[in-house]
Amino acid sequence: MTVRAGILGATGAVGQRLIQLLEPHPDFEIATLTASDSSAGKPYREAAKWRVDTPIPDTVADATVTETDPDAVPDDVDLLFSSLPSSVGAAVEPGFCEAGYVVSSNSSNARMADDVPLIIPEVNADHLDLLEVQRDDRGWDGALVKNPNCSTITFVPTLAALAEFDLERVHVATLQAVSGAGYDGVTSMEIIDNAIPHIGSEEEKLETESKKLLGTFDGAELDLHGVDVSASCNRIPTLDGHLENVWVEASDDLTPEAAAEALEAYPSLDLPSSPEPLIHVFEDFERPQPRLDRTLGEGMAISVGGLQESTFGLQYNCLAHNTIRGAAGASVLNGELLLKNGYL
Amino acid sequence: MTVRAGILGATGAVGQRLIQLLEPHPDFEIATLTASDSSAGKPYREAAKWRVDTPIPDTVADATVTETDPDAVPDDVDLLFSSLPSSVGAAVEPGFCEAGYVVSSNSSNARMADDVPLIIPEVNADHLDLLEVQRDDRGWDGALVKNPNCSTITFVPTLAALAEFDLERVHVATLQAVSGAGYDGVTSMEIIDNAIPHIGSEEEKLETESKKLLGTFDGAELDLHGVDVSASCNRIPTLDGHLENVWVEASDDLTPEAAAEALEAYPSLDLPSSPEPLIHVFEDFERPQPRLDRTLGEGMAISVGGLQESTFGLQYNCLAHNTIRGAAGASVLNGELLLKNGYL
Amino acid sequence: MTVRAGILGATGAVGQRLIQLLEPHPDFEIATLTASDSSAGKPYREAAKWRVDTPIPDTVADATVTETDPDAVPDDVDLLFSSLPSSVGAAVEPGFCEAGYVVSSNSSNARMADDVPLIIPEVNADHLDLLEVQRDDRGWDGALVKNPNCSTITFVPTLAALAEFDLERVHVATLQAVSGAGYDGVTSMEIIDNAIPHIGSEEEKLETESKKLLGTFDGAELDLHGVDVSASCNRIPTLDGHLENVWVEASDDLTPEAAAEALEAYPSLDLPSSPEPLIHVFEDFERPQPRLDRTLGEGMAISVGGLQESTFGLQYNCLAHNTIRGAAGASVLNGELLLKNGYL
Amino acid sequence: MTVRAGILGATGAVGQRLIQLLEPHPDFEIATLTASDSSAGKPYREAAKWRVDTPIPDTVADATVTETDPDAVPDDVDLLFSSLPSSVGAAVEPGFCEAGYVVSSNSSNARMADDVPLIIPEVNADHLDLLEVQRDDRGWDGALVKNPNCSTITFVPTLAALAEFDLERVHVATLQAVSGAGYDGVTSMEIIDNAIPHIGSEEEKLETESKKLLGTFDGAELDLHGVDVSASCNRIPTLDGHLENVWVEASDDLTPEAAAEALEAYPSLDLPSSPEPLIHVFEDFERPQPRLDRTLGEGMAISVGGLQESTFGLQYNCLAHNTIRGAAGASVLNGELLLKNGYL
Repeated sequence: MTVRAGILGATGAVGQRLIQLLEPHPDFEIATLTASDSSAGKPYREAAKWRVDTPIPDTVADATVTETDPDAVPDDVDLLFSSLPSSVGAAVEPGFCEAGYVVSSNSSNARMADDVPLIIPEVNADHLDLLEVQRDDRGWDGALVKNPNCSTITFVPTLAALAEFDLERVHVATLQAVSGAGYDGVTSMEIIDNAIPHIGSEEEKLETESKKLLGTFDGAELDLHGVDVSASCNRIPTLDGHLENVWVEASDDLTPEAAAEALEAYPSLDLPSSPEPLIHVFEDFERPQPRLDRTLGEGMAISVGGLQESTFGLQYNCLAHNTIRGAAGASVLNGELLLKNGYL
Repeated sequence: MTVRAGILGATGAVGQRLIQLLEPHPDFEIATLTASDSSAGKPYREAAKWRVDTPIPDTVADATVTETDPDAVPDDVDLLFSSLPSSVGAAVEPGFCEAGYVVSSNSSNARMADDVPLIIPEVNADHLDLLEVQRDDRGWDGALVKNPNCSTITFVPTLAALAEFDLERVHVATLQAVSGAGYDGVTSMEIIDNAIPHIGSEEEKLETESKKLLGTFDGAELDLHGVDVSASCNRIPTLDGHLENVWVEASDDLTPEAAAEALEAYPSLDLPSSPEPLIHVFEDFERPQPRLDRTLGEGMAISVGGLQESTFGLQYNCLAHNTIRGAAGASVLNGELLLKNGYL
Repeated sequence: MTVRAGILGATGAVGQRLIQLLEPHPDFEIATLTASDSSAGKPYREAAKWRVDTPIPDTVADATVTETDPDAVPDDVDLLFSSLPSSVGAAVEPGFCEAGYVVSSNSSNARMADDVPLIIPEVNADHLDLLEVQRDDRGWDGALVKNPNCSTITFVPTLAALAEFDLERVHVATLQAVSGAGYDGVTSMEIIDNAIPHIGSEEEKLETESKKLLGTFDGAELDLHGVDVSASCNRIPTLDGHLENVWVEASDDLTPEAAAEALEAYPSLDLPSSPEPLIHVFEDFERPQPRLDRTLGEGMAISVGGLQESTFGLQYNCLAHNTIRGAAGASVLNGELLLKNGYL
Repeated sequence: MTVRAGILGATGAVGQRLIQLLEPHPDFEIATLTASDSSAGKPYREAAKWRVDTPIPDTVADATVTETDPDAVPDDVDLLFSSLPSSVGAAVEPGFCEAGYVVSSNSSNARMADDVPLIIPEVNADHLDLLEVQRDDRGWDGALVKNPNCSTITFVPTLAALAEFDLERVHVATLQAVSGAGYDGVTSMEIIDNAIPHIGSEEEKLETESKKLLGTFDGAELDLHGVDVSASCNRIPTLDGHLENVWVEASDDLTPEAAAEALEAYPSLDLPSSPEPLIHVFEDFERPQPRLDRTLGEGMAISVGGLQESTFGLQYNCLAHNTIRGAAGASVLNGELLLKNGYL
């Protein structure tokens, strides 16, 4: 039996990726598509400018887009994937949760709220039970689950795999693809033959979300992890795939060999979108590269390379597909965990 | 009176930049151009595929290229700029020095040799007197001076400006332009919609050359600076201009404001190619950007932006034009220092 | 004595290029800057996001932007350069002309109107006297002069140089830079690793504007030229510089040699922005190239290469800098002609 | 029963695409891989720098590369796909044919030879019987079949679909991807923020190969088609996918509507690599685009858009994946035709 699912903000770049991932999904069925008021009432084909590199599914093309409002969503829909701009997400997501919908959201609002689980299933699936706290706190029939920012998702699984070495300090520099800013986020005049340092509040997201994801949940409260993270973020002329340079200092002895072993051994989950293996480790120091490696594991794998002893601890590079593993796929994977753990 | 100068390896990318910079130079005059044996005897116009964005000077176009051999260089030439591949440089530069020529070299060979001055004039002009040691050691009439690697030159002036705060640890991640690998170094299939982590022995160069540049010369020996540097290098789809993310930990209190003040106050030199100011500090966190800022100070300035308190110390971004300040212009500037200090 | 000049629509991409060209201009002085109502009242520094690769002039940075309204422009201003969106241009340019201002406009509105001179000075300076007809028709104290579309300007000077051969049919395919669509016109997601065929109404502009530019003005009426032109336009991932493939069929014998001679002999004008030579002819078939050749003649020259006998007549390639020769520089050059011919 | 097949020149860009296409092929099995003498004897993994975006198949990775010599190819191999440089192809292909191998070659040598079939199966499958003439002429047990140049393959199927309108004159301008020049063919310094007009002997290939492909074979001789073609070729910063602007003049009335109907109705073949439909016609004038449409039909489809009445006849744009439909896939498809028609 498939779960009837909807997409809030279905016309944007992440919304289109969600359609691409949900259309062939074994457990979810696209039942409703919402967008801004100006798009409501139009067939999706007209409301969205389809830009993904697979053709638009016929059933989606002909579906009528509705307003982003709980009253406009059919009652038999259980799960909503949200890719709304964060200001819109902050305004409307609570209303959907109150109306009984379970929302798996990619929007950045509320990610650090005490009673909102911020989840990468392979890293902290146990945090999902924070939903009990959330329902107690807020009196919702529905629920709100978040996935982290795309650049956070790229490196946190590698930290999780190395956590046993007692991580203390992490430096991370990101080389981020233009799709991370949305379809219209970066103009060609800004980025051809160029690079842009410092992406908005991106650095803070890497520094804080990582501590929550690696934190400990005792059934009542979530303790942030003690690792200190400092990030520097850059936009480069690449379409998809965030590449990150990471330095890790740990109190235990963390050799490149021990790291490679821990990374390769780090388990994936028995969920449709969790790839096996989760983490690919390259011996070639010139890998991973965004264009060559972003589609590993159908875009859901994490790649690591360049593992070497650094002047300070260990250094390596990691990569993930920012609009699949880092956004649409992350929300779908959280939906799969919600289903498996009985929240749907 | 102008100094008659030659270019060893005049047909390559850095060789062409050298011609572009020397042609209008107030003190130097291009007197000879050497290249590989297969080019020797041809007019420069035929030997080189001219790719710089200003027209080839007529006098250069018609000049005959000679072999890269001391016997082929006229006696009235005093100064040679070398942009040879490092293996060729290692093989032939000593012969030119022995034959009495002063060589200002961009090639990476011998940069870390005890008696070879590695110079960024605004940073460590006093190291030039290491040439006395060199002449004693080697019995040369000529001399060999090196400029550092392009990615080293980009961030070391900022460290020099902050040295008074007692630097302890530096992390640096580089986003390097394709021209740094030479005209044919990076194919379009490798880099369009992509980025490549880990550039050959580049990381080691940043880590070691910086300690030599910041070191102390007492007239006899050069002591390396105690700062520890760890580098991670990346190639991105940008033509010119290396952008670098830097984290600095110092034992003294290094605030963004104090850093900005020190960077802006750091002096340039009274040499034709030393720009005033040497370091531009941007308040806009999205600057410096390679395409917008690489030509500041005729391509000889260093740009800094994004100065902020980091989880660990201070973080900021810096930028320089890699084939001007980082290569051809660096060699020319060293030539100017050699002239001023009486070595020509 | 310099002419006091203003810029209508000063904050956009062409407006910024106009500032860059006018700031050092020998005859014109920037006296006023207008923009949309939301920018009016702000210092230019705040109203515009400066993106040109030379620093913003201090006097401009501190100037206050005014509304785009004749009442907001000082009386001592004589000449206005307009880079307004065409719909805005159509709405407000006539009002400025009625109020007595001479407007040199890059906006596409009214280019084909019977009594509006469409001018490339080196091609059809004599058409400027259509202004007499215009003033009679409209009762304006001011005047309205247009320059053509950027892709038209690139190839029409070559047709003018070949007109003596009695041109009959022209095919032209364009490879246009992203800056032609304005700073935000083409997103990076649209164009990286891509090309876009068919640019809006661009093809029609090349086909109709060329006939007007090459037409004959007898002092009363302008006869369109009889040449038939068919255009196919494409956007490619290049920042600046439109490259065009041209096929020309003529009734007279048009050899590559005769064409080269006519192109090289085609005269420039004695105006500050008209380059000498106007047209560069390359023997190398792989030239002109946008990045290497767009800045020839300070961005005001036309480059031609690949002249060869075709299956049908003659074929060649041509190039011009689309935001200098094709837009801002074109308007400035028309301003210079207006001054020389006594219209200011 | 699968055919045992080999790849001549297996380490290059087209060779890698051949492996990617043959590995899952229903009828062909990779039995041997040849390369230059310096690679012979090495495992393929070491001999080739694998750059395709799917992982290298394990069996291929471990296979030993042999010399490109008939004696080095096992006797049970029947079919050889050749992606040798044309000078090498000219030197060695006849030897393989004499030794009894059937060679489906992508190399440009001998394409216009009278007794060598130049085939696009959906266009001129009947030309394959030119092999009878070839065997008579040359006394070969084997056979040599060629596919055309990548830029020829892109537009000829559209001409074939329109041939019923009695084509007279064709102008074509190409915007070609960098992969068409091979992995190392275009450096990043040449093409970023740039375009290169005039690609070697490419224009002549479009003009002559198209006449042979559209020609008539009467069982003994091949008559070239009478259509006159003029081509202008350009390289642009796109990875894969050649986009072409086409103008067609026909003696019969060729409206955009009639053309769309004929293009959509043009049949594919019952061969594993022939896509259904063969030609996609877009109504959106901004399609086809290389990045969005090159993978239609697994990279074997032709896309058409922008059909409109031109000043001269009809104009439209077309697109194909240059290393799949235009090279490796073209050779594989010819192999499938050879198998179906009993030549294996």
